[in-house]
Formats: sequence, C-alpha cells, structure tokens
Amino acid sequence: MSAAHQALRTARRSGRELAVTVLDKGTHTSYSACGIPYWMAGDVASGDDLVARTADQHRAAGIDLRLGVEVVGADLVARTVTTADGTVVEYDDLVVASGAPAVVPGWALRPDGSAYDGVGVVKTLDDGAAWLERFRAADEGARVVVVGGGYVGVEVAEAALRHGFGVTVLTRGRGMSMLEDEMKERVNAALRDAGAEVVLGAEVTGLDTEGDRVTGVRWDGGSRPADLVVVAVGVRPATEFLAGSGVEMADNGALRPDPHGRIAEHLWAAGDCCEVRRRIDDAWVFRPLGTYATKHGRALGDSLAGGSLAFDGMVDTSITRFAHGDTYLEIARTGLSSAEASDLDVVSLVTEGTTTTGYMPEAEPIAIWVMADRTTRRLLGVQVAGGRGAGKRIDTAAAVLWAGGTVDDLAWMDLAYAPPFSSTWEVLGVAARRVAERI
Amino acid sequence: MSAAHQALRTARRSGRELAVTVLDKGTHTSYSACGIPYWMAGDVASGDDLVARTADQHRAAGIDLRLGVEVVGADLVARTVTTADGTVVEYDDLVVASGAPAVVPGWALRPDGSAYDGVGVVKTLDDGAAWLERFRAADEGARVVVVGGGYVGVEVAEAALRHGFGVTVLTRGRGMSMLEDEMKERVNAALRDAGAEVVLGAEVTGLDTEGDRVTGVRWDGGSRPADLVVVAVGVRPATEFLAGSGVEMADNGALRPDPHGRIAEHLWAAGDCCEVRRRIDDAWVFRPLGTYATKHGRALGDSLAGGSLAFDGMVDTSITRFAHGDTYLEIARTGLSSAEASDLDVVSLVTEGTTTTGYMPEAEPIAIWVMADRTTRRLLGVQVAGGRGAGKRIDTAAAVLWAGGTVDDLAWMDLAYAPPFSSTWEVLGVAARRVAERI
Repeated sequence: MSAAHQALRTARRSGRELAVTVLDKGTHTSYSACGIPYWMAGDVASGDDLVARTADQHRAAGIDLRLGVEVVGADLVARTVTTADGTVVEYDDLVVASGAPAVVPGWALRPDGSAYDGVGVVKTLDDGAAWLERFRAADEGARVVVVGGGYVGVEVAEAALRHGFGVTVLTRGRGMSMLEDEMKERVNAALRDAGAEVVLGAEVTGLDTEGDRVTGVRWDGGSRPADLVVVAVGVRPATEFLAGSGVEMADNGALRPDPHGRIAEHLWAAGDCCEVRRRIDDAWVFRPLGTYATKHGRALGDSLAGGSLAFDGMVDTSITRFAHGDTYLEIARTGLSSAEASDLDVVSLVTEGTTTTGYMPEAEPIAIWVMADRTTRRLLGVQVAGGRGAGKRIDTAAAVLWAGGTVDDLAWMDLAYAPPFSSTWEVLGVAARRVAERI
Repeated sequence: MSAAHQALRTARRSGRELAVTVLDKGTHTSYSACGIPYWMAGDVASGDDLVARTADQHRAAGIDLRLGVEVVGADLVARTVTTADGTVVEYDDLVVASGAPAVVPGWALRPDGSAYDGVGVVKTLDDGAAWLERFRAADEGARVVVVGGGYVGVEVAEAALRHGFGVTVLTRGRGMSMLEDEMKERVNAALRDAGAEVVLGAEVTGLDTEGDRVTGVRWDGGSRPADLVVVAVGVRPATEFLAGSGVEMADNGALRPDPHGRIAEHLWAAGDCCEVRRRIDDAWVFRPLGTYATKHGRALGDSLAGGSLAFDGMVDTSITRFAHGDTYLEIARTGLSSAEASDLDVVSLVTEGTTTTGYMPEAEPIAIWVMADRTTRRLLGVQVAGGRGAGKRIDTAAAVLWAGGTVDDLAWMDLAYAPPFSSTWEVLGVAARRVAERI
C-alpha cells in the first residue's frame, strides 16, 4: 500500500494519470503485524487500533482495492495475472508485494492440512483474534509452549505471561538467533526471571494430541504438556504464483528488486516477499520487516510513477523488548554478527554500563557488544541489551554503519550527555573506545 | 583529571616516567557539576555521589594533587606558575584545565563583593551544598526566582518546584537560547504547566534587599518578591592568570587548543576554559560541557605522553529534561541553529509524531525540528522535544552530522522499529523526509 499511495502522489505531482488496482487475498490491509503480540498481551485494546489505514481509506484515496482475491498465476509476457476464481487481470506494471506468511511445520498439522486446535501462528489480524479467543477460553494456569525464540517468540512469551499462563519457550539454538551468545544469554535470563522456562537446542519433532486438540509438544530430548502451542518459526515469501515465470528468486523464494523496486521491465517488487541489500557486506538477506517494506514500497511507487526515490539498502537493525512484572529488557542489534563476519579479522567486546549516570535513581544496567574490523577499523556490528533507554541507542550505531564509519567515530562522536540520559562519556562511546583500544 | 590519568596511562604503556602535579583552587575534584541540580531536587542523596574520583583516589593513581591552591600567574618562558601564596612551581609541560566559574553579575553583589544572602550560583559542590541548606531553611511557599533560562536554569527550576517553592524563571530572550523559537515555546509551556512562572525578555536590573538579604528582583518591565535568587546566566573561562602571557584567547578569555590539546610548545589546554571546534561550520564555539572536557582531556593526556589520540571536534549536541508532577519533557539539540546558519540557504520544518507507535499505551508526543542545506542537501541541525525516549534520539542526528551526511541519509537510514520504540518509519526519519521533500 506504500507503493500504491506513493505512485499516486508522484503521478499527481507530474500530472500523470495512474489506475492502481490492489489484489489481496487477506481480509485486512495496512495493519501492524508487529503489534499483534502487544494486542495479545493486552497493551492494545483492539485489533482495529493496529490498522493504519482501512480498506475504505485506501479506496477514498483512489485505489481499486479488492480484498479476498488470491493471485495464483502470472503471465509476464501477456502481462496478466490470474486469480483463484479464474479471473484474468491485465496490467501495464505488476507490483509484487505478496508478503511472507508464517511457516507452519508439518508436525503442527492434522492429516487434512489444518492445524490442531490450540496451535497457531502469529502473523495476520485473524491470527491475533484467534489467539485472544484461545487465551480467553483457556483455564487459569494453562500451559503455553512457544516454538521459536526469535522476536515473535519472545514477544508472545511476554503476552502469555501477562495472562498468567505457564510459558515454555523452545529454541533451536542458544536463544535469539540474531544475537551474539553473550547477548542471547541476557534475554534467556530475563525470560527465566519473569517465570518462563527456556529450553535451548530444542528441535520439535511432534505434538501429542487428543482428538483434534494439542496436549503436548515433543522434541529431541524432552517433552512438555501443552494446552496452547504458538508456532513462531519464521515466514516464507509468498511467491509460488511466480513459479515458472522465469523470475530469479533466492532459495526461499524471495525476490531481489533493485533500490527502485524494479525486477524486470514492467515487474516490480517490495516488502516481505523480497530480500534486501545489506550495505555493510553488500549481501542479500531475508529480513521481512515493516520498516524496509514501507521504505522500499515508497521508493518503488515513486519510481514506477516516474520519480527517482531509492531504497539504498539497510544495515540490519532490529529491536524488541521483553517486559513482565519487574523484568524489563530492551534488546537491539545492527550490522553483522560475528558469524556473518567470519571472513574478516575482527575485534569484539561486551561493555557493561548504565543507561544514565550511575548516581541517578533511574540508572539501569546496559550491556553493549561492539565488533570492528581490525584492518580497516570499520565498525561492523553493535548489539545492546539493557533497561529503559538502552534499545534505541542502536540507532546511533546504525547511523555510523550507514555512513561506513569506524569504531573511532562511534567512540569519539558527539553524543548527548546529561545525568538523566547517559554517563559523561556515553556508554555506547565507551564500548566503542574499549574495542578501539584493543585493535 | 582526564588528561592527568591518560598521560600516566600512555606513559606507562611506553615505559616512560611522568611526574604529574595538579593544582586546583577548589575543595573537590572530578565531580559532576551537571548533577548538582538533581542533588538539589532530591534525586541524588549526597554530594559524595557526584564525585567520580576522590582526591585520595587520584593520589593513589600517582598524581600529586594539591587542593586549595590557586594559580595566579604563569611565566611561559621560564616555565613556572605562581600560586596565590607566592610559591613558584616549575614545569616541563603546563596543562591549563582551569575551567569556567559561574558569572555573577554586579547586581547580585553587595558593596563588599560578596553575594546577598539568598543569592547564589550553581556550579561547584559547595554551591550545591549551600543551595540545599537554603532550601532546608526556607519557609514552605518560599519564592524562588531563577535568573537565566538555559540548561541550568530549567534544571534548577525543576529542583525548586520539587521542594514546593513558588518559582519564577527570568530569561533574556524567548526561552532556552540554544533552541529554535518553536522548541523554546514547548519548554516554556512545560515550565508553566508544572506551575512555574516564565518571564520572557527580562533583563535583570537589580535586587531589592533588606540588610544583607534579598527580598526581590527587578528587571526592565517588572519585579517579583524573592526569598531566593538562583543566578544561572552562564560561565566564563578562568584564564585571567594567563593575562599578558601572549597566549591567544577568544573575547571571553577562552583558549583554542588543537585536537591534541596543544596551544604552544609546552603549553596545553582542555575543558571548560577552552572553546571547541564545531565540525559542521568549522567554527570555534564556547560550550563548557563535561563530555567535551573529558574527551579533549583524554586526547591531551595521551598526546602529551607521546600518543596520538585526538579530539576531532563536536557537532554541538546537548540534552536536558524538565520533569515535575505529570509534566515531563526531554529536550535536545545538535548542529546549527537557524541563526547560526543565516549565511546558508536552508529548509527547516517541525514535525510532530509519537515516541512509540501511536497505538502503544506508552506513546508520548514528540516534536522534531530539522534543518538542511537547500543546495547540498546536507543535514545542518536537529532539535527534539518530547516525552520519554525523545531526547536521546538526538544522538542519531548527531551521528549523521558527524559524518557530514545529508537529510536523505537521516530520512532513509535503517533506524530500529518495534511498536514500543517508534512508528514503522521512525519519527526522526519522517521529520527528515518531510524536509527532504521540500528541497
């Protein structure tokens, strides 16, 4: 929808006419998938609050929006798409923004292909509504198993804890895969402090069931009874309808548009169905985040309508929070992980400090992992875990990565200091300085 | 003290011997002057909490620290300094880190040169202790007039309000001079919401007194009764002892050392007695902030002992907070003001948004002023005023300024998004994008 609106804006500015048709198989548009865990937790009162623009608002802006319409095929030569009911829709330009539905592993499914009762993913507003209904219907002390320890897994664990449920988080690795081990441990510790069980290295092998209902989860090495099972193991690009069209795709089906969203003549793509370009190592990576979708969509819409806006890649920034009772941890990362920098000679270090000057009553611990290239001194990656005010510090590191700056830049640059906000030498700068001193 | 310690560290690393003597006319070292208003407010329990390193700790590190020793003259050829009691101290290298005491205007002083009872500045730990004593002794409902609407003025107003005093803030201009008018107004509104009176355009002309005590403050256009008067009209470099030495100084007496703290052979300086170099316009500006002092001191100490660390200037970042009762406002700035950019063709705009996604319960308003160069698209300045999480966003803008980036960089760079932290397109990026669209 970002692309659609921007295309209309740019066209209008240059006096061009554009007819924009949007086909979507879902029932809602422009909703915040990231907000669903907070809706599940009770922080957000209604699913409607998560809708940035309703279908009516899109239509009022001049977009021919058709919901509940699934595209099942595309003929890029004839320039038509075919919908599930056999309708053929012609186009001048095709924008693929088909997103990435949640992956549902085989073990979650009954023989008929539907999920067992009590089992579900967290992706659409309908998923969120189903979870709220399941939470409401569940007994006090119900046992929730969350499969997947990524962002969604941690956020949903928080939501389930808020409802007073018993929570077990199963994660294949040592915790959140996008974090270094030292930082993963802090997240695991926070989950445990708040009363969740965290099982590391758990590869789920199957469910226990009674009739249509789930009653437990089994993995190599253990099992737990479960009344509800949240499947949060990732998403996969919805690009099957392009199979056989000759369009180049990544192994998982993701598209690789240029900064303007262009894939081929008359073919465009942006959003969760695409990989994005990471500036630091010029790698294509699959990061289905709303912030990239919005930016790339806007660049696409502008370019399609004759403009020149570009989405010049990303530096792999992301953030979340885990909060329950007295436990509060902000978690963020940007840049490469040590695994992603395995070809480089790097120096990295975790620095501990406080979010404000230590003598202020609101001071909370913060830990910052910084990695730099030993040869070029270039900053490569930063991760943060800590109390209130910790997480958004990642933006400062992201800005340095965006500019291709060095660890010395981050150490010495002019970051804001006053006692309620930082130590005299901002802890992010101290963390960078300590790495710089070891190069 | 940063310079002293770093010099010893660097010397030790290269096997050199250094004898470091520190002469200070005060009674404390290494304390956080910025913390004094929070001590006055009751956020910090004791003045000792503000002391980063005690005299004993400095001495244990091998520094010959002599407190209560005022230097009154220097002979840069003979390489000696003279103290108030006539002692002549020889040196190989002289480091001037004499700071900048608070300015006390003539109207605050009795004929004998001491301040009237009830009148004081906020700079040293002794000042802080005196204020706490005055606050303790004051009647409930005492009237406090704060002269000066800068950072210290606003922070002290907060402290006085917390004690239940009636507070009037007098400011010469339209509010905090380091902010644009649109942002000044937000600070003034917050002060007023919290119960303070704010008088703009008030140039103090004198005090009303009874015996040795202040009873009121007069300015061109008004007057108020006052039991206590906080003088927060700025500071001035303590470099009088270098008068006649031939050292180049700014009009206010500030020194201008190079990035290594070097002024001339065997003469070094850093800290509040110096101006600093602003990278954006390569201007010398007087910004007596602890964060610059610490960095410049460290670079100085390292360079003096044979190292090469440099303080490569600043981008004019600063931050504070005003909090009382339900009123809470974080205020920050970086880069140039519109007045400082008057030679350039600029575009600027205030954007309003929220600190988190709008649907989250913790969302608070934020206003961001962004200024860019119309010709080069270079980012020139950013100012922020808003709720929790607003202020430290300035660091991201500071990082762009540090790198000489454009408003497009700030608009499109990869800033962290999750609902508890920002809107999908981070508000700082939206503010930059709106300016970019107007170029």
